Amino acid sequence: MPELRKDPVIGRWVIIATERSKRPTDYHCAPAPTTEHRFCPFCPGNEDQTPPEIMAYRKDDSKPNTPGWHVRVVPNKFPALRVEGGVNREGEGIYDKMNGIGAHEVIIETPDHKQAPSNMSERQMEEVLWSYRDRILDLKKDKRFRFIMIFKNHGDAAGATVEHSHSQLIALPIVPRNVMEEIQGAKEYYQYKERCIFCDIVRQELSSRVRLVIENDHYVCITPYAARFPFETCILPKSHDPYFEDSQKHEFEALSRILSEILKRQDKALNFPSYNFLIHSSPFNQNSHMNEDHYHWHLEIMPRLSNVAGFERGTGFYINPTPPEEAAKFLREVEIVY
Amino acid sequence: MPELRKDPVIGRWVIIATERSKRPTDYHCAPAPTTEHRFCPFCPGNEDQTPPEIMAYRKDDSKPNTPGWHVRVVPNKFPALRVEGGVNREGEGIYDKMNGIGAHEVIIETPDHKQAPSNMSERQMEEVLWSYRDRILDLKKDKRFRFIMIFKNHGDAAGATVEHSHSQLIALPIVPRNVMEEIQGAKEYYQYKERCIFCDIVRQELSSRVRLVIENDHYVCITPYAARFPFETCILPKSHDPYFEDSQKHEFEALSRILSEILKRQDKALNFPSYNFLIHSSPFNQNSHMNEDHYHWHLEIMPRLSNVAGFERGTGFYINPTPPEEAAKFLREVEIVY
Repeated sequence: MPELRKDPVIGRWVIIATERSKRPTDYHCAPAPTTEHRFCPFCPGNEDQTPPEIMAYRKDDSKPNTPGWHVRVVPNKFPALRVEGGVNREGEGIYDKMNGIGAHEVIIETPDHKQAPSNMSERQMEEVLWSYRDRILDLKKDKRFRFIMIFKNHGDAAGATVEHSHSQLIALPIVPRNVMEEIQGAKEYYQYKERCIFCDIVRQELSSRVRLVIENDHYVCITPYAARFPFETCILPKSHDPYFEDSQKHEFEALSRILSEILKRQDKALNFPSYNFLIHSSPFNQNSHMNEDHYHWHLEIMPRLSNVAGFERGTGFYINPTPPEEAAKFLREVEIVY
Repeated sequence: MPELRKDPVIGRWVIIATERSKRPTDYHCAPAPTTEHRFCPFCPGNEDQTPPEIMAYRKDDSKPNTPGWHVRVVPNKFPALRVEGGVNREGEGIYDKMNGIGAHEVIIETPDHKQAPSNMSERQMEEVLWSYRDRILDLKKDKRFRFIMIFKNHGDAAGATVEHSHSQLIALPIVPRNVMEEIQGAKEYYQYKERCIFCDIVRQELSSRVRLVIENDHYVCITPYAARFPFETCILPKSHDPYFEDSQKHEFEALSRILSEILKRQDKALNFPSYNFLIHSSPFNQNSHMNEDHYHWHLEIMPRLSNVAGFERGTGFYINPTPPEEAAKFLREVEIVY
């Protein structure tokens, strides 16, 4: 009998196939391409192919927009949103629209075209995390923005258009619905229980351990109880923390370790799949303290193993052919080398 | 400046790229395969390769589960949900689950392996619509179910696993969140305006005509104001109607005409893309009359031209690189042959 499981935060139902569940080798995914090297606008020497850099971590004697960097942040050349102007809400008959205001930046994670997050050093990964933090802290000063999301598309099937490893940042004047739903769900739980639901999830997962993949002093990596996608994982801080960007130095070290390790395990278990990851952190600049007790930042990783089809599109709930307990077991047991 | 547009029913924001908008030829999609003919479990003569038929429209002298049918409905051999048993809700620590109860059926739309909906006769298309109706009316008698959705995955990129043209039906014990959101949004509008929001959309689109693709006496086909996907279209009845399955004979004739035509136009404009379509109709068996004034059934068609990436996954709102007004113009102006 398949199981319908409810996401504890937002209440979304997921169908978990408990019979005939799919093992990693049942997914015939083309591995994300890694080494072919055509002209790349993100490689050192091609700095003039991107808009001028916003920030870079680079050698002391190197000049902006020249080689010598190890992480480089530039505006997206084809931004989904524009940073200039006002929000300007208006109607069109029964419809509503506003200007597409927002920042859209690209974090070039490494100068090495062949490096992906799963084969980066932990030191390099930590630098990438610091660059996320620095950009978020800078953009939070802009009072038009309410929410910033960091996300990564790795591989064709995940929507990546440039192969060279990069993440993206988008700052928005509104809190998007997926995050709003999480915040509202977490708030209702908090009002009822006076506890953070994410803290309760971490507690239950550490105790039952069936969906625990790996952990360290500061973070856990689990497969969510109502995972939408096969082999979906989630990294959460063990102690309550609403803002990713407020993490401390020793936390970023621990985070880069756990993120490196889960990406290596995912590559090994699933043969270098395409994937997305994204960070959900608290909104700001608007009664933001109101969410601090009940919202808990986290990083979601979603390998792209199957296509979302008409059923998911029409109902908004998902069919996951691999129970999260089995996915966690595969990811725990796979052997990786450093 | 890109535009943020709000879906009038559920309030979802969509980013519409108004500069550098993508034309049909900018989407490099592999056409959905159509003619290669390996062994097919849905072809006449292979009736024993599916579970026994639930219903078929067939020649008077032909026997069940033998050739002679022109539409055939069978249980899904690999159902996402099981039809036997009770709903049985239970907890698991902080989590909630229930049994995966539901019906999952396959409508084999034609005996001809090479026929797709866009090259079916209108008569055959009408038969398919009648089969949807007959199965819905039968399943509504089962008091465990609250909602039935018809959907179709056409082509690899849309999640189709069998090439022979078929649709699917799923009957659920709960109203899925996407439909619930539409119902709630429509209800709020109704409480405020005392009018059905879908009727107002039809009225505004028929008057402005910028997003109108085609129409006939009973139906309109439009590109939605806040379309999530490029070249997404929606067919709605012109007059208020909560239930697809209550449509009359002359309405099914008109519906098969407009559906045939939009699928032909989509094939011509976009070079035979993969696509999903789905029908959203009112829930039933639970105060169902309560939705009758404000919910209005409709059929959504979504060609699969681009991949949903990390941004959409994380925020729940979409980036659509082709403004719906331009998509409507392309679809209107394309020349099709009958």
